Amino acid sequence: MTSSGRTFVPVSRPQLQHAKPSLALRTDAAPFGRLEGSGPELSTHRLENGLDIVVIPDRRVPVVTHMLWYRNGSADDPLGQSGIAHFLEHLMFKGTERHPAGEFSKVVSALGGQENAFTSYDYTAYFQRVAPEHLGRMMEFEADRMSGLNFDDAVVAPERDVVLEERRMRVETDPSAQLSEAMAASLFVHHPYGIPIIGWMHEIETLDRTNALDYYRRFYCPSNAVLVVAGDVTDRDVIRLAEGTYGRNPQCTDVPVRRRPAEPEPRAARHVCIADPKVEQPTLQRLYLVPSSRTATGLASHALEVLAEAIGGGPTSYLYRRLVLDGGKAVNAGAWYMGSAIDESRFSIYAVPAEGVSLPDLETELDQAIGSIKDGLDDVAIERAKSRLIAETIYSLDSQSSLARIYGSALAVGETLEDVRTWPDQIRAVTRDDLVAAIETWLTERRSVTGHLVKVRG
Amino acid sequence: MTSSGRTFVPVSRPQLQHAKPSLALRTDAAPFGRLEGSGPELSTHRLENGLDIVVIPDRRVPVVTHMLWYRNGSADDPLGQSGIAHFLEHLMFKGTERHPAGEFSKVVSALGGQENAFTSYDYTAYFQRVAPEHLGRMMEFEADRMSGLNFDDAVVAPERDVVLEERRMRVETDPSAQLSEAMAASLFVHHPYGIPIIGWMHEIETLDRTNALDYYRRFYCPSNAVLVVAGDVTDRDVIRLAEGTYGRNPQCTDVPVRRRPAEPEPRAARHVCIADPKVEQPTLQRLYLVPSSRTATGLASHALEVLAEAIGGGPTSYLYRRLVLDGGKAVNAGAWYMGSAIDESRFSIYAVPAEGVSLPDLETELDQAIGSIKDGLDDVAIERAKSRLIAETIYSLDSQSSLARIYGSALAVGETLEDVRTWPDQIRAVTRDDLVAAIETWLTERRSVTGHLVKVRG
Repeated sequence: MTSSGRTFVPVSRPQLQHAKPSLALRTDAAPFGRLEGSGPELSTHRLENGLDIVVIPDRRVPVVTHMLWYRNGSADDPLGQSGIAHFLEHLMFKGTERHPAGEFSKVVSALGGQENAFTSYDYTAYFQRVAPEHLGRMMEFEADRMSGLNFDDAVVAPERDVVLEERRMRVETDPSAQLSEAMAASLFVHHPYGIPIIGWMHEIETLDRTNALDYYRRFYCPSNAVLVVAGDVTDRDVIRLAEGTYGRNPQCTDVPVRRRPAEPEPRAARHVCIADPKVEQPTLQRLYLVPSSRTATGLASHALEVLAEAIGGGPTSYLYRRLVLDGGKAVNAGAWYMGSAIDESRFSIYAVPAEGVSLPDLETELDQAIGSIKDGLDDVAIERAKSRLIAETIYSLDSQSSLARIYGSALAVGETLEDVRTWPDQIRAVTRDDLVAAIETWLTERRSVTGHLVKVRG
Repeated sequence: MTSSGRTFVPVSRPQLQHAKPSLALRTDAAPFGRLEGSGPELSTHRLENGLDIVVIPDRRVPVVTHMLWYRNGSADDPLGQSGIAHFLEHLMFKGTERHPAGEFSKVVSALGGQENAFTSYDYTAYFQRVAPEHLGRMMEFEADRMSGLNFDDAVVAPERDVVLEERRMRVETDPSAQLSEAMAASLFVHHPYGIPIIGWMHEIETLDRTNALDYYRRFYCPSNAVLVVAGDVTDRDVIRLAEGTYGRNPQCTDVPVRRRPAEPEPRAARHVCIADPKVEQPTLQRLYLVPSSRTATGLASHALEVLAEAIGGGPTSYLYRRLVLDGGKAVNAGAWYMGSAIDESRFSIYAVPAEGVSLPDLETELDQAIGSIKDGLDDVAIERAKSRLIAETIYSLDSQSSLARIYGSALAVGETLEDVRTWPDQIRAVTRDDLVAAIETWLTERRSVTGHLVKVRG
């Protein structure tokens, strides 16, 4: 059970991964990146019970990636039951009437395969990677746990303890995670993106069999899911296998509706501070409330992607140069943008102070740097950022699971295949003016939460 | 339509008052204060349809105060419909099938009476003050609008515009109100006390006839209400009149249940800043998440009441002396505690900087002052605070509406008459150790939100 998020940076974790240690999923590109212009030749299909299917041919190696995406994540947790989407993800491994707990995982492992599952704000997904001849078997298992899950008290209560322990390990003992939670809660004062994916401790404690079963019946059904299969398979085979497995799952009783309260217009600059003896590295973080790919108009979301890359995408980026290389005020600095979201999302800037630099001083430097982006970013840097973004995404397609993940996450948040296909062209179309407009419109004090992670004596 | 709250201090408004300008309700004592030990000889009664009745004899003047308290406030607004409790309060003046809009108010006025209504987090209340012979007529009107309210579109949509305009005037153009909203939203990251009573603008805009009618049917019914009558009347007369009026109201379909998500344990110190050219007076504010009278164990809530009075109750209090009189750093300083609440509540400290003193400097001073309360508060000061609290409450009983309000608000948040009766003795029982425990347990950084209201150039 590891976390995702960009490596080497202190970020608020966008996902909870329930991963086997062997898993080599590249989380650094997906779900933020997209596909090259033309992209692979996809085929799509819908079963009679409403299950959407996307088949992505990838014949380079004799491997198939089977992913099932449910269009429900932690932001759909019923009020007072935070953490239930993630709890369900755990319960999905606890067996069904036909297959006892652990059997599915054992089979995947015995076949030399890999498996994973993750819960995000907007979706929950399960996947396996196996040799193509085992695809049908994966579908059989996955379809079986879509409607036949075991909810015995003997399973539910102990698994809740596992989740509570997971939260204790990941958050209760980690000041950095606590800062992320507190910053998200301050950024999203009304929308459930302000609630941690894993849930608040006191609410996880109350989750029971009835909650879990109600939730399962509401969301785990064909028309709420997207099946993505990438690999050395034909669409005809995939559809045939899906019809024989998922095709037998009963329809959703109701089509689940996602109702989330919208954020009010932000008015106040906010600061959040966690001071703890356990802090190993003080850090400065900043979040801005910004549009996502779904809520943006025009190229605003694409502009934010380019902006994050240009100012904070590695050691050649604007902020790194200015704060680390030139100013020597920080030992690291960067930015990221979470464009893939149904509702308003977050743009983050962070910096790790150099020895002897206080966080308030670093914040002053950072604010000056942000105030000068317009002057500090030349056209060459912008074009380089665009090329890098597109190239990184294309490189990521080398991983079949990234490929499947890009399409799965896009469809799960309500983007279209066309959005994915045209993504590189739209990134190319972003102009300097788009970036300036993005900075002026979205990177404003009133839309921001600043976080200080401070070491204090124990 | 004025606001309540302590006078002369910048506080987050605990209530929205829908008051006639003539109203002389003393909001500075109730609902925070309580009654003297023995108290008046109350009588209580419950009608068959579930309406609770409290009669408080007060024969000093030929006046009667008729208050109807509903056990629903803004914290019970359905998710995404913030502001609906307050909107309903407005609609309650728009007439019924039997009485057109404005008739009730006209009658009260013609009788030389006064009326008022207010919406708080935990309740909504309506009251009139008239000569005793008109009590029956007030009941007839109030009972009529409990179940016969007019929800024509011709009424609902224009009144929503009135509320939107009210919000524009009270919040959108007032940086101080914006700071209060942002601080409450930061203090309560999960519980609906973080949502403004008047509602978020974008949600008020969507309130419609159906929302209003659903809400009305759910909450406006006898067993969800408490009738409080204070004045020159006998309980026999009150009950007889109530049976002939409220007694005819149909029972609640379901007993409304208040389900509110609890706050997670706070971990991060938070700061909120509103910088605006319209700020006339910079101020420093601090909120702490603390127990209410309902959630406290032992004397914790009483200790917080004494603490607020001792450190911040006027010009002889600890903070005023230290920051204003001795230090000269502030021109005003004080504290208040909102003990009357169903769920976890707020304790506030504030200071207004002297000319030339910056808010960060004042905050340092304030933190030092808070850190030294234990040393700075002698037993004499504590006893004086307790006496003042009790005396103020007793003085407030001179106002019949305060009397009715103390009992009504207590019952509306689920306190008992016994809680009210024993309040003075419990205040007297608070010890120095209770205060020290309150400071150490509740006035901690991680439970706090600090607000800066800063003037900037336009």
